[in-house]
Amino acid sequence: MDKLLRVNMSAAGGPKATEEPIGNYAGLGGRALTTAIVSKEVPPDCHPLGAENKLVIAPGLLSGSPAAMSGRISVGCKSPLTGGIKESNSGGQAAQVLARLGYAGIVLEGKPADAEARYKVVINKDGVQVVRDDSLKMLPNYDLIEKMKGEYGDKVACMSIGTAGEMKMGAASIACTDMEFRPTRHAGRGGVGAVMGAKGVKVIVMDDKGLKMRAAKDPEKFKAANKSFVKGLQKHSVTGEALPAYGTNVLTNILNEVGGYPTYNFKQGNFDGAAKISGETLAATEKERGGNPTHGCHRGCVIRCSGIYHDKDGHYLTKQPEYETVWAHGGHCGIEDMDKIAQLDFMDDNYGLDTIEMGAAIGVAMDAGLIEFGDADGAIRLVEEVGKGTHLGRILGNGAGVTGKAFGVERVPVVKNQAMPAYDPRAVQGIGVTYATTTQGADHTAGYAVAQNVLKVGGDVDALKPEGQVALSRDLQIATAAIDSTGMCLFIAFAILDQPDTFQALLDMIGAFHGTEMTADGVTELGKKVLSMEREFNARAGFTKAHDRLPRYFQTEAFAPHNVTFDVKDDDLDTVFNW
Amino acid sequence: MDKLLRVNMSAAGGPKATEEPIGNYAGLGGRALTTAIVSKEVPPDCHPLGAENKLVIAPGLLSGSPAAMSGRISVGCKSPLTGGIKESNSGGQAAQVLARLGYAGIVLEGKPADAEARYKVVINKDGVQVVRDDSLKMLPNYDLIEKMKGEYGDKVACMSIGTAGEMKMGAASIACTDMEFRPTRHAGRGGVGAVMGAKGVKVIVMDDKGLKMRAAKDPEKFKAANKSFVKGLQKHSVTGEALPAYGTNVLTNILNEVGGYPTYNFKQGNFDGAAKISGETLAATEKERGGNPTHGCHRGCVIRCSGIYHDKDGHYLTKQPEYETVWAHGGHCGIEDMDKIAQLDFMDDNYGLDTIEMGAAIGVAMDAGLIEFGDADGAIRLVEEVGKGTHLGRILGNGAGVTGKAFGVERVPVVKNQAMPAYDPRAVQGIGVTYATTTQGADHTAGYAVAQNVLKVGGDVDALKPEGQVALSRDLQIATAAIDSTGMCLFIAFAILDQPDTFQALLDMIGAFHGTEMTADGVTELGKKVLSMEREFNARAGFTKAHDRLPRYFQTEAFAPHNVTFDVKDDDLDTVFNW
Repeated sequence: MDKLLRVNMSAAGGPKATEEPIGNYAGLGGRALTTAIVSKEVPPDCHPLGAENKLVIAPGLLSGSPAAMSGRISVGCKSPLTGGIKESNSGGQAAQVLARLGYAGIVLEGKPADAEARYKVVINKDGVQVVRDDSLKMLPNYDLIEKMKGEYGDKVACMSIGTAGEMKMGAASIACTDMEFRPTRHAGRGGVGAVMGAKGVKVIVMDDKGLKMRAAKDPEKFKAANKSFVKGLQKHSVTGEALPAYGTNVLTNILNEVGGYPTYNFKQGNFDGAAKISGETLAATEKERGGNPTHGCHRGCVIRCSGIYHDKDGHYLTKQPEYETVWAHGGHCGIEDMDKIAQLDFMDDNYGLDTIEMGAAIGVAMDAGLIEFGDADGAIRLVEEVGKGTHLGRILGNGAGVTGKAFGVERVPVVKNQAMPAYDPRAVQGIGVTYATTTQGADHTAGYAVAQNVLKVGGDVDALKPEGQVALSRDLQIATAAIDSTGMCLFIAFAILDQPDTFQALLDMIGAFHGTEMTADGVTELGKKVLSMEREFNARAGFTKAHDRLPRYFQTEAFAPHNVTFDVKDDDLDTVFNW
Repeated sequence: MDKLLRVNMSAAGGPKATEEPIGNYAGLGGRALTTAIVSKEVPPDCHPLGAENKLVIAPGLLSGSPAAMSGRISVGCKSPLTGGIKESNSGGQAAQVLARLGYAGIVLEGKPADAEARYKVVINKDGVQVVRDDSLKMLPNYDLIEKMKGEYGDKVACMSIGTAGEMKMGAASIACTDMEFRPTRHAGRGGVGAVMGAKGVKVIVMDDKGLKMRAAKDPEKFKAANKSFVKGLQKHSVTGEALPAYGTNVLTNILNEVGGYPTYNFKQGNFDGAAKISGETLAATEKERGGNPTHGCHRGCVIRCSGIYHDKDGHYLTKQPEYETVWAHGGHCGIEDMDKIAQLDFMDDNYGLDTIEMGAAIGVAMDAGLIEFGDADGAIRLVEEVGKGTHLGRILGNGAGVTGKAFGVERVPVVKNQAMPAYDPRAVQGIGVTYATTTQGADHTAGYAVAQNVLKVGGDVDALKPEGQVALSRDLQIATAAIDSTGMCLFIAFAILDQPDTFQALLDMIGAFHGTEMTADGVTELGKKVLSMEREFNARAGFTKAHDRLPRYFQTEAFAPHNVTFDVKDDDLDTVFNW
């Protein structure tokens, strides 16, 4: 973890991989590392698909160790979707394997001379190879991974793009393989897959065979802290009960009940079909069909909020769809058929697409009259068009913003051109502050105020009122930037925000591993530092406070059932980063 | 000219027209009036297609009078293409007729409840009627105007949108009828037609029957000044010889010879096929086929740079295509067949599309491999797709920027998402400063440094070097903002920049007409005032100096034959509006 791998796709004579000491980036992991490199090395006014952009991939500070929940991997670049800095992170096996290979990060640079060339980057204990293999061209992720399995076995980890990334679409994701070597975990947001596609890299194969787990500097203290940390996660109602039992989709009933579930392209807060697609129904169906509602997405996960979804005949269809996916392809589009939603989830994973952006784009297309709300087969046809790159697919695959422009739609739920996730900012005003102000474009994970607004975890702030939301979002954005930099799964936040001893256990674990002392103040400073770098990049890219706003209709169009508008004042939004 | 016509499309019970005194906007015409109203009344963060945007239409200070060249009409709004303020102006008959009807401006406001409704606004000496007429839906401009002729005769003036405006495309124009009652003159840039479409207004019919020409306060002085002004235009080589003889397309040979003619999507500065599509060839063909190369676009024009283009059989095909059109559909796309270019010009006029944006989008599509450079029939098929609103048409019709996104193209020649016109900013660096910094998005008419860089009119600044370009563009942008506010054709600039007595004649003419004194300093102040309002609107809409830049590749990719890059420094660009 003291070295960076740079892969220069522009090198004379073909792509070239070189190792270098981590140097000034020492001590940074995950989002802190991707943000630092992008911020320092990428010109903010470059074209996101050009040679000057870089794709930075970084495991966390504890990835590759026995630390629980340390399996997130961050992907950073200038975003083709937002035009700003981007960090998109994913579960799956990649973080653990890459960290064991000793890399703090991979930096894909430049652009191959031949835009038709496809490369795979193969990393193992003996070194790095960049191999041209045009036979990979336009393979969807599942086919690609099957091919990799034939070549490298199923003990490796892969990060790959599907057809969407090759077509450089704004909704293109980067897939990470899970424990079953399926391409089900995605760095979904912001079009990071398009940047990988622009670099001509189809897949990164990581093989940690012959390498050991990373060891802590103070093994005893580390072990004890990890144990206490796991206990904390297991005793908390969200991380110990709700998430393992029902997955993230436990939120469907909750958000629907509080009237914050954006239905029919953000027109109302309740969806009649919610019960049919809820986490409870999903888990029951999975059990009934021989799937599994309680399954980790990477080694070392103790929350196990993922799962396996089987079709009616008991065959694998897709991994358990996440809440945001079920919402985007479900309630947002008026669709209540869980099998169809699962099929859409599979298709998005296969083509390499952000499920949130795709669902949002389809909802906008429904508003434009292309198909009716509720038309599940129509939605499936639309995603097929995206995967194939038809002209309509080129529109939808570039996200809700481009779809709105193409069809002249005014009601397009985006901030910084990135689609809003599954919480209406009028009924959950804290998340509205996060959507508006985060450096990432509308993103619930950047400061998940749903916790305090709705779940009443880590605090209690009235969801329907503007009071207190700015301070809440500020604190959460700082904490999130820090957690994203540790490579820990963000879901630990429920337990560490609620339970001081679990938070202390996390600090002890990081400290013991690296032989340093980690304090709560240090975490806050790290979060602020990351946000400041991101804000500064975005400012140089041309972002102003005018970009830290929701679309106007959230201020003017009252949202049922509470008949609320988004009431946090512009001037208050401008204070989120005053600390 | 002391009243405004407001048409509220949101009014309860249906659209409602009301007159009001001009009030605080008194004394403003053309761009000064559209900019003042948009700047004061439109929220900069509104959606361009929403009810809060306004479409402002304003003739000039001398429109409707016997003043030569006073036939330009300004159209202002928040642009759906750039997201900033927009003033797009047009020749044709509208300015003269609207001014005689006594209106300093028309303000279309709100948005009809029924998005399927189509309205015509009919204005004559007896008043204003807003009439729903859904039979107009999806009529192209020529068919629409033929229908209007049947209803109102051919002595009226119309402003209308074609199918593109109804589909709210970013490249949608507003057509103005010419002296032959054809929809050939367009407020082309920035998607103003989409805003008219969003308001549900298909056509504005203006009938000045029974109304007189506007009279000057000091008729004798006015008459003398007008005479001197006309003499000045006639004796200048550009306005008295080149433009009447060959039209604006006289520039094809000139730009090609200096190596500044952007060919194959801005890849080189010379086009092998230039001679086939030059102004000289065009004029000869028009004469030969019984067309006319020397024809005004509105009553009172003495330059007569327009013309009539006949097909091989001697039938009317389109008006004489302008230089920028011939370039956009010609050299930019490697097309050298003048009849095909003329057909594309007709199609753009008919569907209501900006020829520059369309040609630029097709060039980007060619770079993406959709069709080959040089494929004229392919280009015609693509414009047909736009007019019909196929999915591919939805992409192209939203301009070069959206086309680049849809097909993952890096080399997209836009500033503020508006396509660059027919002068490469590397070989004509002064126009590069204008493209980068104007409030309008890439726009040659905002500060036509080609005059001093290439034509050596009004000064001499080396086109290939950065020195002196900022001061040049600054002065031109100020002068242009003022000229656009008078409603005079911008081509008078050649003569007034070169001949002090012609400039004085213009000042005298305006002064004598309004009974005020117009000075050179007053003109400069007016220009600065207009630009300041526009800059301020754009700043509130989120524009920063990062938006006052050319795409990076103009700084890094050398341009043949001179092998130059755009070398004006960013810091210098930031001083354009320091005065």
